[in-house]
Amino acid sequence: MLGSRGGWRALRRCSSLPRAVRLRVREALGAREPADAVRVQGWVRSVRSQKEVLFLHINDGSSLESLQVVADPSLEKRDLTFGSAVEVQGKLVRSPHRMQNVELQAETIHVVGPCDIWSFPLKMKERHPLEYVRQFPHLRCRSNTLGALLRIRSEATAAIHSFFQDNGYVHIHTPIITSNDCEGAGELFQIETSREAKESAEKTQFFNVPAFLTVSGQLHLEVMAGAFTHVFTFGPTFRAENSQSRRHLAEFYMVEAELSFTESLQDIMQVMEDLFKTVTSTVLSRCPRDVELFHKYIAPEQKGRLEQILKHKFMIISYSEAVEILKQAPQTFTFKPEWGCDLQTEHEKYLVKHCGEVPVFVVNYPYDLKPFYMRDNDDGPQHTVAAVDLLVPGVGELCGGSLREERLPFLESRLQRLGLTDAYQWYLDLRKFGSVPHGGFGMGFERYLQYILGVDNIKDVIPFPRFSHSCLL
Amino acid sequence: MLGSRGGWRALRRCSSLPRAVRLRVREALGAREPADAVRVQGWVRSVRSQKEVLFLHINDGSSLESLQVVADPSLEKRDLTFGSAVEVQGKLVRSPHRMQNVELQAETIHVVGPCDIWSFPLKMKERHPLEYVRQFPHLRCRSNTLGALLRIRSEATAAIHSFFQDNGYVHIHTPIITSNDCEGAGELFQIETSREAKESAEKTQFFNVPAFLTVSGQLHLEVMAGAFTHVFTFGPTFRAENSQSRRHLAEFYMVEAELSFTESLQDIMQVMEDLFKTVTSTVLSRCPRDVELFHKYIAPEQKGRLEQILKHKFMIISYSEAVEILKQAPQTFTFKPEWGCDLQTEHEKYLVKHCGEVPVFVVNYPYDLKPFYMRDNDDGPQHTVAAVDLLVPGVGELCGGSLREERLPFLESRLQRLGLTDAYQWYLDLRKFGSVPHGGFGMGFERYLQYILGVDNIKDVIPFPRFSHSCLL
Repeated sequence: MLGSRGGWRALRRCSSLPRAVRLRVREALGAREPADAVRVQGWVRSVRSQKEVLFLHINDGSSLESLQVVADPSLEKRDLTFGSAVEVQGKLVRSPHRMQNVELQAETIHVVGPCDIWSFPLKMKERHPLEYVRQFPHLRCRSNTLGALLRIRSEATAAIHSFFQDNGYVHIHTPIITSNDCEGAGELFQIETSREAKESAEKTQFFNVPAFLTVSGQLHLEVMAGAFTHVFTFGPTFRAENSQSRRHLAEFYMVEAELSFTESLQDIMQVMEDLFKTVTSTVLSRCPRDVELFHKYIAPEQKGRLEQILKHKFMIISYSEAVEILKQAPQTFTFKPEWGCDLQTEHEKYLVKHCGEVPVFVVNYPYDLKPFYMRDNDDGPQHTVAAVDLLVPGVGELCGGSLREERLPFLESRLQRLGLTDAYQWYLDLRKFGSVPHGGFGMGFERYLQYILGVDNIKDVIPFPRFSHSCLL
Repeated sequence: MLGSRGGWRALRRCSSLPRAVRLRVREALGAREPADAVRVQGWVRSVRSQKEVLFLHINDGSSLESLQVVADPSLEKRDLTFGSAVEVQGKLVRSPHRMQNVELQAETIHVVGPCDIWSFPLKMKERHPLEYVRQFPHLRCRSNTLGALLRIRSEATAAIHSFFQDNGYVHIHTPIITSNDCEGAGELFQIETSREAKESAEKTQFFNVPAFLTVSGQLHLEVMAGAFTHVFTFGPTFRAENSQSRRHLAEFYMVEAELSFTESLQDIMQVMEDLFKTVTSTVLSRCPRDVELFHKYIAPEQKGRLEQILKHKFMIISYSEAVEILKQAPQTFTFKPEWGCDLQTEHEKYLVKHCGEVPVFVVNYPYDLKPFYMRDNDDGPQHTVAAVDLLVPGVGELCGGSLREERLPFLESRLQRLGLTDAYQWYLDLRKFGSVPHGGFGMGFERYLQYILGVDNIKDVIPFPRFSHSCLL
């Protein structure tokens, strides 16, 4: 038995190179001082061979920018191609070129893994369209655009966690497998064990009730809002909507938060707006070059718009005002705007345009349009509820929220009318034991990314574009 | 239309109380200075009415400790009971008691939501056993123990994200719905739309291949490890194991990481150990009182053990050494230890005890015991692979990892022998385009919590104890 790692040499296979400081590309690019013995590993993004000098660009995913390597042509090898994996050792020196601060003067270049360039679908120095790389779910992360997207997605994820933690929220992993459908909205995915699927005659269930993939963590967060005043979740949600739309996914991420002792929709909207602005500012400052790529090549006008939006308060209009605006619109809609009817995509687009292409909160929707848990505004017999949707240009509904009906008699009679009393007994229970005014919201994470980056197809902001009938990795 | 929030007063319903600074219980308890007009909201944890003074304890989930409220008995009301929700306004003053720094001298007490104490399953000042509260999935978060657990879980989640972000890892949301089963290990949950489930005769599939809930994000992380040198994921994974064990869940969380240009299992173990130690230290320093609750009432010896473990290097033994230790053990095992056979729970327990009840890495397992993607150690014809399991006292396997087979010919021949070449064509592809030595590991998040807190039943470290045949909320 070996008591410590030190005595156990068998595990560490020796590198063929003498030891040098291992730097990531991002670290090398940010170096303030030249350095003598440096080792950089990554994938070759370009090879340019000249008579007297060999130029390489190495990328390791730590940044959009690659590190320029300068080498003697004698170091060139047959398998040192675009896409190959290399380890380069040498001196980090100031670069004579304006485009970069430093470059690596190679002493050795080791091809760790060659690349079969004839069958590799990405080509050197080509800007591949998003639709093209979407065909290669296992390789597209090696394109500049998807690399940038994934770094941005990672930073945004971290920023969302930080936002809530900094504001004293408790993070809750709400269940993925559940027997409640939250709103009765959207088609569900049902779950059985693979054995049950094969021997469907038997019908022995793993769970003793039908089990589905969650469509929202809200009701579970409401449970927690009876013990913690601030809770949030950020996890996958599912809709079996049979759609090939550029706006829908079968599997997508939602940020959801719930606040107790909250009597005003205003408080909920404030958190939505703060979340949006804080996360966006963080992403813009932590991944400036990655965001720039999108704002340069994918959505050229998005940069200026976003900067404007971060400076101003979001607009607020009521549903009733929205319907009036739509009725007075000079254009004809496919669906005639009418109080009591849902706002359609064409309506949302018009409203956002009417308000100057900025995010707009629409509040106080008709009672009959919204799910049972939304709070009656008491402005007439079942007239409106304290609901809010945040509409943004190009994407439509980015967030939805409401005050929840905390008053037991209101909730009881509504559930009874809907025939849902038995299914939601546990939810009614929550109103019997120290019920408090509360509310919350959800934000679609992919729609958020689509919006800030100006990406048209939602499949281009997820790590694996596998959904809606495509092959599943 | 209303251009800004300021002009829109209708939304904000007026509170009956004059404005005072709203403080969370945690903030009030940490206050350095007395304060005149303070407002605290929360749920009543105790009521003690004396002739001349009324004592309340208010908890809002922001800390284990409650805030003591001192009031004139005239403020007592019939519905001011244990479990009710209240808003108290008054003065924050220094407390004459040794147990707390401050207390709140109430001027008004408003019962926001009464509690039906006769049907409320939690009782004042009772220490409810974990098995008891597990029966009330929608109410148990209001017990001290589960409140503490959920705060710890939230801090640990944040610490995991920070650990990887601070070390330059890119976070990847690996797919939940997938058609690959990663290792062929464990029973899967299969997915269909709820309509398909009802009309199973039709057999129109939403996805064009059978779709399952993920058992691991590893293979998807490996895709990303071809573009980023450091990636991680932290999400739900699923096993349809028909077990009522205290160690298994159908839905649980896994932290998984993958490192490129890694030639040594040592590097993987170092990250595992650093992750464990960093997250544990963070939790211990950020939730000392919450952790203390577990170490006082649930697992009295765990505190000292954990402190020792954080100070020392984890042990490392090889699988072959482990088998020798087991063969020389003075005790008889149900399963006879033999080179080439899996380590059983009884074996793991003995090994951990033999090493002094500390975490132990076991490395280099027999080739035939492990999945196809693990790297052949070349120490004989298909003799051992570079695999590692981390065993910890009381829990067993906490982490598992390996170097991955990056060499195309090795992988091709192994997949061919297993008849899996077609299914993993995309995985083989990764080895054709700049393949690099890489490796990674996974850590079960619930087992981690079980271990550091000394919790026996894994159902007591998840927010909703709904799994394995119990009702699903």
